[in-house]
Amino acid sequence: MTDLQQVLDEIALDAAMAADRGVVAQYIPELAKVDPRQFGIAVALPDGQVVCAGDAETAFSIQSVSKVFTLSMALGKYGDSLWSRVGREPSGDPFNSIVQLEQEKGRPRNPFINAGAIAIADLVLSGHQPREAIGEIVRFIRHLADDDSIRIDERVARSETEHGDRNASLAHFMRSFGRFSHQVDHVLGVYFHQCAIAMTCHQLARAGLFLASQGQNPLTGTQVVPPQRARRINAIMLMCGHYDGSGEFAYRVGLPGKSGVGGGILAIAPGKASIAVWSPGLDTVGNSKLGTAALEQLAKRMEWSVFGA
Amino acid sequence: MTDLQQVLDEIALDAAMAADRGVVAQYIPELAKVDPRQFGIAVALPDGQVVCAGDAETAFSIQSVSKVFTLSMALGKYGDSLWSRVGREPSGDPFNSIVQLEQEKGRPRNPFINAGAIAIADLVLSGHQPREAIGEIVRFIRHLADDDSIRIDERVARSETEHGDRNASLAHFMRSFGRFSHQVDHVLGVYFHQCAIAMTCHQLARAGLFLASQGQNPLTGTQVVPPQRARRINAIMLMCGHYDGSGEFAYRVGLPGKSGVGGGILAIAPGKASIAVWSPGLDTVGNSKLGTAALEQLAKRMEWSVFGA
Amino acid sequence: MTDLQQVLDEIALDAAMAADRGVVAQYIPELAKVDPRQFGIAVALPDGQVVCAGDAETAFSIQSVSKVFTLSMALGKYGDSLWSRVGREPSGDPFNSIVQLEQEKGRPRNPFINAGAIAIADLVLSGHQPREAIGEIVRFIRHLADDDSIRIDERVARSETEHGDRNASLAHFMRSFGRFSHQVDHVLGVYFHQCAIAMTCHQLARAGLFLASQGQNPLTGTQVVPPQRARRINAIMLMCGHYDGSGEFAYRVGLPGKSGVGGGILAIAPGKASIAVWSPGLDTVGNSKLGTAALEQLAKRMEWSVFGA
Amino acid sequence: MTDLQQVLDEIALDAAMAADRGVVAQYIPELAKVDPRQFGIAVALPDGQVVCAGDAETAFSIQSVSKVFTLSMALGKYGDSLWSRVGREPSGDPFNSIVQLEQEKGRPRNPFINAGAIAIADLVLSGHQPREAIGEIVRFIRHLADDDSIRIDERVARSETEHGDRNASLAHFMRSFGRFSHQVDHVLGVYFHQCAIAMTCHQLARAGLFLASQGQNPLTGTQVVPPQRARRINAIMLMCGHYDGSGEFAYRVGLPGKSGVGGGILAIAPGKASIAVWSPGLDTVGNSKLGTAALEQLAKRMEWSVFGA
Repeated sequence: MTDLQQVLDEIALDAAMAADRGVVAQYIPELAKVDPRQFGIAVALPDGQVVCAGDAETAFSIQSVSKVFTLSMALGKYGDSLWSRVGREPSGDPFNSIVQLEQEKGRPRNPFINAGAIAIADLVLSGHQPREAIGEIVRFIRHLADDDSIRIDERVARSETEHGDRNASLAHFMRSFGRFSHQVDHVLGVYFHQCAIAMTCHQLARAGLFLASQGQNPLTGTQVVPPQRARRINAIMLMCGHYDGSGEFAYRVGLPGKSGVGGGILAIAPGKASIAVWSPGLDTVGNSKLGTAALEQLAKRMEWSVFGA
Repeated sequence: MTDLQQVLDEIALDAAMAADRGVVAQYIPELAKVDPRQFGIAVALPDGQVVCAGDAETAFSIQSVSKVFTLSMALGKYGDSLWSRVGREPSGDPFNSIVQLEQEKGRPRNPFINAGAIAIADLVLSGHQPREAIGEIVRFIRHLADDDSIRIDERVARSETEHGDRNASLAHFMRSFGRFSHQVDHVLGVYFHQCAIAMTCHQLARAGLFLASQGQNPLTGTQVVPPQRARRINAIMLMCGHYDGSGEFAYRVGLPGKSGVGGGILAIAPGKASIAVWSPGLDTVGNSKLGTAALEQLAKRMEWSVFGA
Repeated sequence: MTDLQQVLDEIALDAAMAADRGVVAQYIPELAKVDPRQFGIAVALPDGQVVCAGDAETAFSIQSVSKVFTLSMALGKYGDSLWSRVGREPSGDPFNSIVQLEQEKGRPRNPFINAGAIAIADLVLSGHQPREAIGEIVRFIRHLADDDSIRIDERVARSETEHGDRNASLAHFMRSFGRFSHQVDHVLGVYFHQCAIAMTCHQLARAGLFLASQGQNPLTGTQVVPPQRARRINAIMLMCGHYDGSGEFAYRVGLPGKSGVGGGILAIAPGKASIAVWSPGLDTVGNSKLGTAALEQLAKRMEWSVFGA
Repeated sequence: MTDLQQVLDEIALDAAMAADRGVVAQYIPELAKVDPRQFGIAVALPDGQVVCAGDAETAFSIQSVSKVFTLSMALGKYGDSLWSRVGREPSGDPFNSIVQLEQEKGRPRNPFINAGAIAIADLVLSGHQPREAIGEIVRFIRHLADDDSIRIDERVARSETEHGDRNASLAHFMRSFGRFSHQVDHVLGVYFHQCAIAMTCHQLARAGLFLASQGQNPLTGTQVVPPQRARRINAIMLMCGHYDGSGEFAYRVGLPGKSGVGGGILAIAPGKASIAVWSPGLDTVGNSKLGTAALEQLAKRMEWSVFGA
């Protein structure tokens, strides 16, 4: 894999020298503190090998990237009946908009906008205490990455809770349509903790590998989801994974991907690789600026775009 | 290719026996007259071979499928400067909505909603008379399909013009933001005629082949667009090609595709095939009901989904 | 006042015989229980005299009519600086819509939609405990009506709290724009209790008299607000007092008025009368059906419309 | 009437010295040319007397003030059946917005936003040629003002037509819902010409007098509309006469009024006066800046507010 290693090294070098690195998320103090000069990338291959460059062993807050894992969990529990609670169309609106939620009677457009992920958190709870549901999510991700050291950053979780009015508003709003099974504070407890999970690029690339390998995790041999479900999660990632910049990401990178405001992106080249990239500075839509540029370069040089070599 | 032929025959047989065929488009009388029992499918392969089943030699009104060809033409003329006039994000709204157009100062979300295609028609005109621009579009499509018998259905074109108030509204609206170079009636003249082009599945599958072959038309040997542009057009087709059902199409079929209210769909399996399917009955979002089901089956059986085998 | 008495008696008779009485508000169980056959009307005149008909001595939940009194209180505390927190334009949207609140960065259109009244409750709190602020509101209304028997219906207050997700959503939403000084549960505590105040038509007509008398309460001799402020509150009542039915109310009745989902309406004929009417059945917009009809008849027969005798 | 004359003289003097005069409408060249230093005011009293100050004899383009007259005409022709075509609620949106028109299936919110006035123009046409309908409107206004010298400014009418894309968009949009009886260009011909009528403050105050006098024109003795209809037109003027600044106008001035982008305002003090004021500079919402200030002063000093002396 010397070739891939060399590509990643060059990408990391470009990132290190980038002048415009975007702006670190300001909406919670714990994220605003992160040093914007960091950049890491890791590529996990179907044989289990992981190739890294830059700060690939530094843990960061995965934030909305966690939505891929909770969606996978909830689909395992509820199957296709899940889609009565959340749609699978791109939203065409800033990620925290309430407008469409009102038009569509409290049913979020897709599981990757905040409202949709909160609805998924309500499903993941399924009658348990928040503590148990959070534990289940962490265990699921540890199992996927085959790494028991993955943890929640409690300071981030507290910071999310303290500045969570917009998400509380979304949750109460959906609840007012009778769409919630649990108390708002329990659901938000789950949601804020899943967003506060800290992972390295190395860990994240491994955790996403099942989506590049027909639903099977080559690290553990587990069939995490059936092949068709893996394809479908990839489809939703491509359509909805970058908020109102999803079209731009598909156009430039050409891979299913999910971004988080912590600056991480998980991208999938089906059959070829699971890629995690991280750089804290965001573009105007809220996606990692250097992370997107790195994926664009990587997909082009490796000819990994799903839209044609 | 016996295998593919057999798959297509089975798909055509399923379609012939389908009970719920959707509803034929009512908004112009010429389309409302079409017999809903028809179904055709054609698959063009990179070596130029075409495999067909059902009514694959019956001409139908391609309607919005034409937007793929005018976008390709306009990108050839204007390159990336085209994107100052139209975006490339999914719209998250019914195809004829004016709401987002107002919020975004007359710049349509993407080239495949009506407003976007009308803006592209304004670019295609580029100072010429409507007659010349229409001629250029028809010649381009004939060249792509390597078939000079492709024609405009003048009755459909007239019917579009007579019932074109919604599109006239969109055009005047964009013009009020100073975004138009030509008279509204000239631009609409081009737009209504491109929509009224009649093609068979056989012809349409051939015309789309360059998008499955890195921009090169294997029938004529012409490099229609550079490889990167072919990938990008595919990306836009996947993100925006089925109006507010684009997410659903990506989820079920997993291929870039563009539908028309005439019941046709052009879908691209990059590196593998260009597929045209046609059945006049539409689902609630305005996409061919049996056409979508056929593509879902085909992609599954041939393992053509871009999201993983 | 025999003439007015006779008019009221005839109006009450018409109401008693009405076939279509509208639908009692369903959104909280305590309101849904109210008997729809009730109707009361009371007219307080500038000399302090009150003329009544029907169930004018039956207490009902004043709900949003309370917004007139908290606006008057908050204007007393903050003066015109209050308008930086809330606008004074009609909303053109259902009363619980969040759409405009998002477009206008968390500043409600006017103090009479729910979001606006919640913002006013935040102002009324002004650093105190909810208990104190609620006490202050009740004392203010008792003083206006010169009647110490006015009380909060605690079962209604509890019911509001239990079904208050939509309002909690609005409050968290505004708070996310940094527009709130207090905790959401404290603000909602005030808001839900002010809505749960129970009054009779007799009491309510007296409490509104200052708005018909240049800001002075003839019952107590107190100048409640300056004359200009009374005019302005009347203006806001006319423009915004009936949600998205305000235009209809101005057209039919021609008086400033404020309705509540409990079926009460307070209307002001400047210089002439303060009118309270109550009937629990609502029209589709959420205003008392028979109450509006009664006011239309009264304004016509007494020639009280502000738009010309 | 020395008192009123003195008040008007002082108001005119204040206006002459005003530093911030707003900005002259730019959307059509003919209006952009008007000298912003002009100011005129005229008050017509129920006895037929007219008191003036400033440039009260200079003709200006009445623009949207004309909507009051075409509404009165159309109500005469169609009575209350007119309300199936147009609503009577404030719009809560900029005057040229298409958003609400889409939500409400092509039925404009009220007759004073552009879409509503265009729908009224369609009604006024009632099967005739545009020329005849325009002639009828001019004759109606001449009769109201008892002045045959009132004319259309043809340069303004042409300028409107040349820059009428937004209105053409609205018209085609409504027509696409099947709500139009005539060709779009005929309806717009009527609309653009009614807006281009030129009147002086003196003429305009006289023309509005029937709305201050229970529907009767004291100049000619004609009952223009029944008393109830005059009240209702006044109600719509108050609720909707100043676009998204209607609440502000009611709050500050307290009179029914209708503004135009030419800088004119017609205001009605029921039973007391018909007032025309004109100054070309507009505020951010599109209403005459000095005109509104003048009316605020006049209503206050004469105690003409409908919301209490």
